[in-house]
Amino acid sequence: MARITLLTDFGTGDGFVGAMKGVLATRAPESIIDDISHAVPPGDIRKASRILGRYWSRFPSGTVHLVVVDPGVGTARRGMAVEADGRFCVGPDNGVFTKVFESAVTWRCVELQASEVLPDPESSTFHGRDWFAPAAAYLATGLPLEVLGTPLSDPVRLPLMGWEREGDRVKGVVVEVDRFGNLLTNLPGRFLSGSTGVFLGGERVPTGRTYGEVDPGHTLALVNSDGFLEIAVRNGSAAESLGVGVGGVVEIVEG
Amino acid sequence: MARITLLTDFGTGDGFVGAMKGVLATRAPESIIDDISHAVPPGDIRKASRILGRYWSRFPSGTVHLVVVDPGVGTARRGMAVEADGRFCVGPDNGVFTKVFESAVTWRCVELQASEVLPDPESSTFHGRDWFAPAAAYLATGLPLEVLGTPLSDPVRLPLMGWEREGDRVKGVVVEVDRFGNLLTNLPGRFLSGSTGVFLGGERVPTGRTYGEVDPGHTLALVNSDGFLEIAVRNGSAAESLGVGVGGVVEIVEG
Amino acid sequence: MARITLLTDFGTGDGFVGAMKGVLATRAPESIIDDISHAVPPGDIRKASRILGRYWSRFPSGTVHLVVVDPGVGTARRGMAVEADGRFCVGPDNGVFTKVFESAVTWRCVELQASEVLPDPESSTFHGRDWFAPAAAYLATGLPLEVLGTPLSDPVRLPLMGWEREGDRVKGVVVEVDRFGNLLTNLPGRFLSGSTGVFLGGERVPTGRTYGEVDPGHTLALVNSDGFLEIAVRNGSAAESLGVGVGGVVEIVEG
Repeated sequence: MARITLLTDFGTGDGFVGAMKGVLATRAPESIIDDISHAVPPGDIRKASRILGRYWSRFPSGTVHLVVVDPGVGTARRGMAVEADGRFCVGPDNGVFTKVFESAVTWRCVELQASEVLPDPESSTFHGRDWFAPAAAYLATGLPLEVLGTPLSDPVRLPLMGWEREGDRVKGVVVEVDRFGNLLTNLPGRFLSGSTGVFLGGERVPTGRTYGEVDPGHTLALVNSDGFLEIAVRNGSAAESLGVGVGGVVEIVEG
Repeated sequence: MARITLLTDFGTGDGFVGAMKGVLATRAPESIIDDISHAVPPGDIRKASRILGRYWSRFPSGTVHLVVVDPGVGTARRGMAVEADGRFCVGPDNGVFTKVFESAVTWRCVELQASEVLPDPESSTFHGRDWFAPAAAYLATGLPLEVLGTPLSDPVRLPLMGWEREGDRVKGVVVEVDRFGNLLTNLPGRFLSGSTGVFLGGERVPTGRTYGEVDPGHTLALVNSDGFLEIAVRNGSAAESLGVGVGGVVEIVEG
Repeated sequence: MARITLLTDFGTGDGFVGAMKGVLATRAPESIIDDISHAVPPGDIRKASRILGRYWSRFPSGTVHLVVVDPGVGTARRGMAVEADGRFCVGPDNGVFTKVFESAVTWRCVELQASEVLPDPESSTFHGRDWFAPAAAYLATGLPLEVLGTPLSDPVRLPLMGWEREGDRVKGVVVEVDRFGNLLTNLPGRFLSGSTGVFLGGERVPTGRTYGEVDPGHTLALVNSDGFLEIAVRNGSAAESLGVGVGGVVEIVEG
């Protein structure tokens, strides 16, 4: 009983996800389909990559992660399948798998190619249904990666949004605001131990280990469940309270 | 292991979908429940029918499609079950299955009737939970359609929003705007081959086979994954850019 | 094949639900995960409890209901697991299970405790993934409740929003507005039989058994699918039409 997960920017209101699920259910009838999200902002490859980074390795070996955030459908961009630490990913070669490449111990890719196993997509505008879903279904039935195409050594990777060091400061940015208004940064949590201060837009932010260490409505910097520095307001939205969004500068001063 | 799909206008925020899933899981414990959408605008039977048209036949034979968009709950409107090309549909007899009747090779219907197998609904306001879900569960366990009621020969069908011919022009309308802002028309794609032009509100629109044939931000008319004429803006929203919505007039001039 | 249901306030747009599903799929690989909702307003324990009340007992015996609406994550609030009439619930001890305690014939709780079976959560900010999901998975694999912790006799319960009697009147309030704009009250439906009138903000509201008894756009008081008094506008939103929301006073005059 294989599991196939589904991450798209389709919303659910048009039936496009339903069409993909139908293809999966027909071609891999024993599989369970787990929705991750269909609420990725249209075409937001970076956000999709970050979401995927949170779950791909937590599913069991053999799981197939189907990701269709594909603003380049109908262009020359390639389709691909990945095997990473025993899990599989299928989708467009547009950088959406960047976080998998960053965090997997071992991975390899193939470029999807028309063959007896993977026919030409019937449409030129809906590769999720006509090309990626059939490929994902094949992997879910136990077919090896190689059958789907030829090795791909240079998959597209999104440019790393890295932190930088300036003297005794490590400088990063807010890379994501989550549903609760927490400010998620690209600063690895390890810098927090031994630091003498965290600064957001020049203002010092108190640090702690978890939300309960400050009163409701107060601001706190902590290491979040991704292992990165996060700035939160307890029982509130840091983004709203502090007026900061993606791109806001955060600095850790080392001890 | 039967699959039951679920399409409603309930949203997920009240637990009504949860109540239906509980009934399905209790009465058809071996079944997998696949969400299609719960974001149909309240009471929008036409939209629900169009969504259903995109997936019903892509699921394997034996699948049960439960559709509860039911503004007439608590009136005399009938409940029904359909068998169409080996798949089943259950829901109110209000036109929501129109696209199934249009596209199935063979279909037949029964009117749901209280019996030993399908008791009277316990409530008069939530037929999705108390009447349609039990009927769907019975079908998922392999019970034949006939057990649920008596043949229904005149199910409600939505009036066809057809195209018309005027001299050398085929004239249609935008019938749906999808999440990406694409304008979906009721003009069959076959008219595009051999045409000398596509016009939206009197303005000529370039035609092509897929999105990548124009630069980002540019407009294109193409045959979409439903097989109908679509007007799109590459990596943008045609609805917003062109200020056109449902009802906008589109014409194809034949060659 | 156990079922695990999932109710959170995470939204789906960040991948947090995906991370939890991965943990469940790894630790209880034979289980089916049924989404209930991820659209609970952030931290709204009362709403979560009401949603849970609509479905928990409708799922089959053995189902595990995982509920993560947890504004107190990172404080001293306890984690808990419940066995109620053969179903299980796992989540924070913050009142989210109030409706289960109200409606179950028998129930018992344990406080989740670190052990060989249930390790310390790896993070201090995401107990849904690191603590509650593993506990839910253990129950789904058939492990008994007692293994997860020690008996808990005083779980947090939300204060009952009760009705009160004033002379020949039973007085309640609107406790919830559903997606359709229906006003759901805390007045048990039994008071409607034999009453001589229902009043909303002093205005008499016609009563009936179901929506079809009034014309579209008209107001009606009826007993809803939860068994409580509801005020609805047929094919419209009572909340909008009448300008009433949560807290609005509703009275039934007894005959």
